[in-house]
Amino acid sequence: MIDYHAPLRDMQFILDELAGLPDVAALPACEEASPDLVAAILEEAGKFATGVLAPTNRQGDLEGCRLEGERVIVPEGWQAAYDQFCESGWLGLSLPEEFGGQGLPKLVSTPVWEMWFSSNMAFTMLPQLNVGQAEALLIAASEDQKPTWLEKIVSGEWAATMNLTEPQAGSDLAATRMRAEPDPGGDYRLFGQKIYISYGEHELTPNIVHLVLARLPDAPEGVKGLSLFLVPKYRLEADGTPGEKNDVRCISIEHKMGIHGSPTCTLSFGDNDGAVGQLVGEPHQGLKTMFIMMNEARFGVGVQGLALGERAYQAALEHARERVQGRNVVSGETGLPILHHPDVKRMLVGMRARLLAMRTFLYTAAGWFDLARHHPDAEVADRHRRYVDLLMPVAKGWCTEIGNDLCDEAIQVFGGMGFVEETGVAQLFRDARIITIYEGTTGIQANDLLGRKILRENGETLRELIDDIRACARSVGKDDRLTELATSLDEMLDTLAATADWLLAQGKERTAALYGGAVPLLHLLGTVCGGWQLARAAQAAQRQLDADEGDADYLAGIIDLARFYMASVAPEAASHARAVRDGGNVLAQFPETRL
Amino acid sequence: MIDYHAPLRDMQFILDELAGLPDVAALPACEEASPDLVAAILEEAGKFATGVLAPTNRQGDLEGCRLEGERVIVPEGWQAAYDQFCESGWLGLSLPEEFGGQGLPKLVSTPVWEMWFSSNMAFTMLPQLNVGQAEALLIAASEDQKPTWLEKIVSGEWAATMNLTEPQAGSDLAATRMRAEPDPGGDYRLFGQKIYISYGEHELTPNIVHLVLARLPDAPEGVKGLSLFLVPKYRLEADGTPGEKNDVRCISIEHKMGIHGSPTCTLSFGDNDGAVGQLVGEPHQGLKTMFIMMNEARFGVGVQGLALGERAYQAALEHARERVQGRNVVSGETGLPILHHPDVKRMLVGMRARLLAMRTFLYTAAGWFDLARHHPDAEVADRHRRYVDLLMPVAKGWCTEIGNDLCDEAIQVFGGMGFVEETGVAQLFRDARIITIYEGTTGIQANDLLGRKILRENGETLRELIDDIRACARSVGKDDRLTELATSLDEMLDTLAATADWLLAQGKERTAALYGGAVPLLHLLGTVCGGWQLARAAQAAQRQLDADEGDADYLAGIIDLARFYMASVAPEAASHARAVRDGGNVLAQFPETRL
Repeated sequence: MIDYHAPLRDMQFILDELAGLPDVAALPACEEASPDLVAAILEEAGKFATGVLAPTNRQGDLEGCRLEGERVIVPEGWQAAYDQFCESGWLGLSLPEEFGGQGLPKLVSTPVWEMWFSSNMAFTMLPQLNVGQAEALLIAASEDQKPTWLEKIVSGEWAATMNLTEPQAGSDLAATRMRAEPDPGGDYRLFGQKIYISYGEHELTPNIVHLVLARLPDAPEGVKGLSLFLVPKYRLEADGTPGEKNDVRCISIEHKMGIHGSPTCTLSFGDNDGAVGQLVGEPHQGLKTMFIMMNEARFGVGVQGLALGERAYQAALEHARERVQGRNVVSGETGLPILHHPDVKRMLVGMRARLLAMRTFLYTAAGWFDLARHHPDAEVADRHRRYVDLLMPVAKGWCTEIGNDLCDEAIQVFGGMGFVEETGVAQLFRDARIITIYEGTTGIQANDLLGRKILRENGETLRELIDDIRACARSVGKDDRLTELATSLDEMLDTLAATADWLLAQGKERTAALYGGAVPLLHLLGTVCGGWQLARAAQAAQRQLDADEGDADYLAGIIDLARFYMASVAPEAASHARAVRDGGNVLAQFPETRL
Repeated sequence: MIDYHAPLRDMQFILDELAGLPDVAALPACEEASPDLVAAILEEAGKFATGVLAPTNRQGDLEGCRLEGERVIVPEGWQAAYDQFCESGWLGLSLPEEFGGQGLPKLVSTPVWEMWFSSNMAFTMLPQLNVGQAEALLIAASEDQKPTWLEKIVSGEWAATMNLTEPQAGSDLAATRMRAEPDPGGDYRLFGQKIYISYGEHELTPNIVHLVLARLPDAPEGVKGLSLFLVPKYRLEADGTPGEKNDVRCISIEHKMGIHGSPTCTLSFGDNDGAVGQLVGEPHQGLKTMFIMMNEARFGVGVQGLALGERAYQAALEHARERVQGRNVVSGETGLPILHHPDVKRMLVGMRARLLAMRTFLYTAAGWFDLARHHPDAEVADRHRRYVDLLMPVAKGWCTEIGNDLCDEAIQVFGGMGFVEETGVAQLFRDARIITIYEGTTGIQANDLLGRKILRENGETLRELIDDIRACARSVGKDDRLTELATSLDEMLDTLAATADWLLAQGKERTAALYGGAVPLLHLLGTVCGGWQLARAAQAAQRQLDADEGDADYLAGIIDLARFYMASVAPEAASHARAVRDGGNVLAQFPETRL
C-alpha cells in the first residue's frame, strides 16, 4: 500500500507567498482565516487524510460496490470514515456558518479538499456532492427551503446527489427528457431515468437528497426549459424527518475502470406514482443555477488532477528512492536506487515541477474566487470574477490532463511493479481516467474557452491576462539570477499573444477550423499559466533566500523546478500554437468520410 | 463488445507501395511471398482475427486467470482458440520450413501478428512466446537439440516461456541469481525463483518449455556469467515424450491492471531435487543470444502499440459515427453524430495519421529485417542491419508510447462510456499500459538509442539516416502539390541534425546531462520517422492518383493525413529537441535531495 503525506510545506509556501492568503484574510467575511488557524487546519486535515482516508483507499478499490436488489453496498470502511468526516466538521469547512458550516474562504478549503482527493478520491466524491448541492441551494433555494435542507446537507446528516445525465443527454443537457408534473398537493412528481449518478444510492445516511434536472409540462424546448428539483430518497414528514420511501429506485450500477468505491447508479424516478419533489428556484431556470455552480465544480475537478498527481508522485518518489536496480549509465556504479538513473530523475523532477505549477495556479485561482465574492471594490471583484470565468476551463481541462500524465509517469517509474495492482499506483492511474471526462470533457472545456470565454468577448480578458503575465515577466526579469525564467515566459507569451491575435482576426466562415484547434489552445494557455505561476514561485523563493528566511535548500529547489519547467515543458507552447493554427486548418478541409 | 476488422486496405497499400514487398519477394528464400499468396494470407488472417480471436478478448479480460494449488486456469475460450490457431498453421508463419514452419518473410508475418495483437493481445502472448523461443533455439541450440524441441515449439504442440526476471533483477539482468548445477547424468539442475513469467503455467498443452537465464557455478559476475537453459515442465522420456513432472512450480500469479487473460507467474525452480534442464549454446553466452533476439522482441512489442492503437481507433470511430449528441458548435445543428464535433474529428484524424505513420514505419522496418538477413549484397544487407539496430529502440519506445496515447484518446472519444468497462475500450487502455514497460521500458530504449546506437558509433548511422530522409524530402518536394510536406519534413530534419551535432559535440563530463534528455531524443527521432514515412506515403498516393490507379478518395485521404501530421505532430519535434538540450542540462544540476 502506498502512503500519503500532505505536502504541507508546499501548500503553506503557496498560500502565504503566492496565492495571497494575507489579502484574502483581510477581506470582510474571511477574517477568521488567520495564519495560525489556517496552519492548524492544514495540519489536522493532513492527519485525517493520512490516518483515516488514505488507509481505506485500496480496500475501497478492491471491494468496490455492489447492487443487491435495490440496495447499493459500498466498501465496508466508508461508514466509519464518513461518520468521522462529518463529526470532525470537515464537510462544512467552506459553507456558511448560518447553516452549520465554518465559512472559511475557498483558498483555505482548497488545500484541504486536495488532501481528501489525494488520500481517497472515490470516498471523497460523497461529501463533495454535499458541498456542490449546498452551493446550488444557497443560490437557488427559497428562504423556506433553506433551513429544511441545508442544515442536513451541510452537516452531512443526509447525503446529496446531482442528477443531470440521461442516456441521450450526456454532454448535451438540452436533450434532457425527465418530466416533472405539478401535483395537486403542491409538490411535483418526477418521471424518468438518470444515469451516471455518483452515490445515487447507499445506506450511509438516513436520507439522500437528489437534485434533479427535469422539464415542466409547459417547458420550452432545449436548455431554456430545464428546472431543478429536490427529490429525497425518503419523503419528508411534516416535521422534516424522513418518512415513506419515495418513488426512486437504483436499477443498476456501472462496472467502471476506476473509482470503484464510488457507486455510479442508474436511477429510475416515478415507476409507480411519481417521485415527489420540490421545485428549486424559478421554473425553467435550472440550467442557470447549474451554470453559476459550474466554475466551482470545474475547479473542484481540476483539484482532483493535482491531488491524484501528488499522490502518484509521492508513491513514485518513494519507490525510486528504495528500489535498487541497474548500473548508473554514467558512472557504472551499481547498488544505487533507481532515482539515480537520469531518466527516472527526469520523470520525478518533471512531475514535481508540474505539481508546483498546478498547485500555485489552482490556489491562486481559489483566491480569485474569494476576491471576486468578497472584495469591497467592485472593480477588483469583477476583475477576479472575469479571471475565474476565463481560466476555469483551463483549471479543469489542463490540470486533469496533467494529472493523468503524472499518474501515467508514476507507473513508468514503478516499471513492471506499476502494472501490478498490489503497489496501488495502478489504482491512481485508473481512478484518474475519469477526471478529464466528467464535469465536461477536455474538448468541452476547450470549446467553452475558445467560444464563450475568448471569441465572444473579443479576447478582452485574455489580453488583460497576457498584460498581467507580461508584467510578471518584467518584474522577474529584473533579477539577473532569474532572467532566463523571464525570457522563457516572455517567449511563451509572444506565442500566446500571436495565437490570440490570429484567432480574433479570423472571419466567421473559419469558425469550424478554429474549434478544431480548441484543445491545443487550452493546452497552450495551461502551459503559459503554469510557467507564469512558476516564475512567480521562483521570484518568491529568491526573495526569501535573499532575506535569509525559510529553508534555503527547499527554496533553491523551487527555483530549480521553475527552470526545469521552462526547459522541458514551456517549449511545448510553440507546438500547441502551431497545432491551433495549422492543425485546425487541415482538419476543416478533411472530409469525415475519409476516416 | 467492440468489433475488429483487419485494416487490409492500409496494410496492402503499405506493403506494396512503401515497405518494399516486391523487393523482399525477390530475395532468395523469400520467393514464396508472391502478391497473390500474401493477399490470401492477409485475408484469411483477417477472418481468423475477427471471427476467432476478437470475440474471446473481452471474456478473457473478465474471467482472467486463477491459481488453484499449483494449477493455473486460463480463460475458458483459450483452449479452442489456441488449438485452432495451431491447426491453421499460424504459429509457424515466419519460422523455418525445416521445422514445420512456412518460412515467410518478416514483412508478411508482421501485418498478420498485428491482427492477432489487435484482436486479442492477452491470448496472442502465448503463441508469441513460441516464436520468440524458436528464434532463440535457432540461434543457440545444438543440432541435436533442434529437432527435439523446435518441431514441438513451431507447431505449438508444446508451449514456451522466457524466464529472465527475478525480484532483484528486472531491467538489470546482471543481478540474476538463478543457479544451474551440472548433474552427473549430463543435464543441469536449476534452483531459484523467476517472476513475471507470462504463461509460466497452464494446461493448454501437454508440455511447457521454459527458457531460463541462470548462472553456472564457475560463472563470472555480472552479465557475462549468464547461461541459457531449456527446462521443460515435464521431463522428457528417452523417446522425447513428456514424462515425470519436473521440479518447477507456479507459486503465485499477479493481479494486474490489464492483459488479464495472460497469466503472469512466479515460478519456483528446484524446491526439491532441482529442475532438470539442458544448456543451450555455450556456457556464459546466454545474454549474447538474448541480445541477438532483442531487436525482434522489441519490434514485436512496437507492433503491439500499433495493434492496440488500431483497435482503439476502430472502436472510437464507430462510436463517433453512431453516438448522436450535442449541437454543432459552428452550425448549431442538432441530431448529428459526435464525429461532426471539430474536437472529436481532431482526435480521430490524429489517431489515424499516427496509425498510418506507425504502420508504415514498422512494416518498412520489417522489410529491413528481411533485407538484412537475405540480401545477397553484403553492403546492402549491412546497411539495413544497421538501420534495424539504430531504430528498434524507436520502434519499441515510440510506437508503444503512441499506442498508449491512442487508447487514451479512444476513451476520450467515448466520454463517460469509455470509463465504463462494458464498452471494451477501457480494456484496451488497461492492456496497453504494459507495453511501454516490458521488453525494456521507454527509458531503457532511450538509453540504448543514445548510448549504444548513437554516441558509441559517433552518430554514423544516424547521419546516414538523416541523409536518407533528406533525400526523401527533396524527392517529395519536387511535386508542387506536396511542397508543404517536404518543407515540414526538412524543418524536422534540421532540428534532428542540430540536436545530433550538439549531442556528439558534448564532452564525457556532460554524459549525465545527455542521458537526462534520452527520452525526449527518442520522441524526437520517432516524430521524424513518422513524418518521413507519411511523406513517402503521400508521395506514393499522389503517384497512384496521377496514374489513375486505386481509389482516389482513399489516396487523397492518405495525403490529408500526412498534412495533418505535419501540422499537429511534427511541431513537437522542436519542443522535444529543446527538452533534450535544456532539460537535460537543468536536470544534471538538480540535486536529488530536493525532490
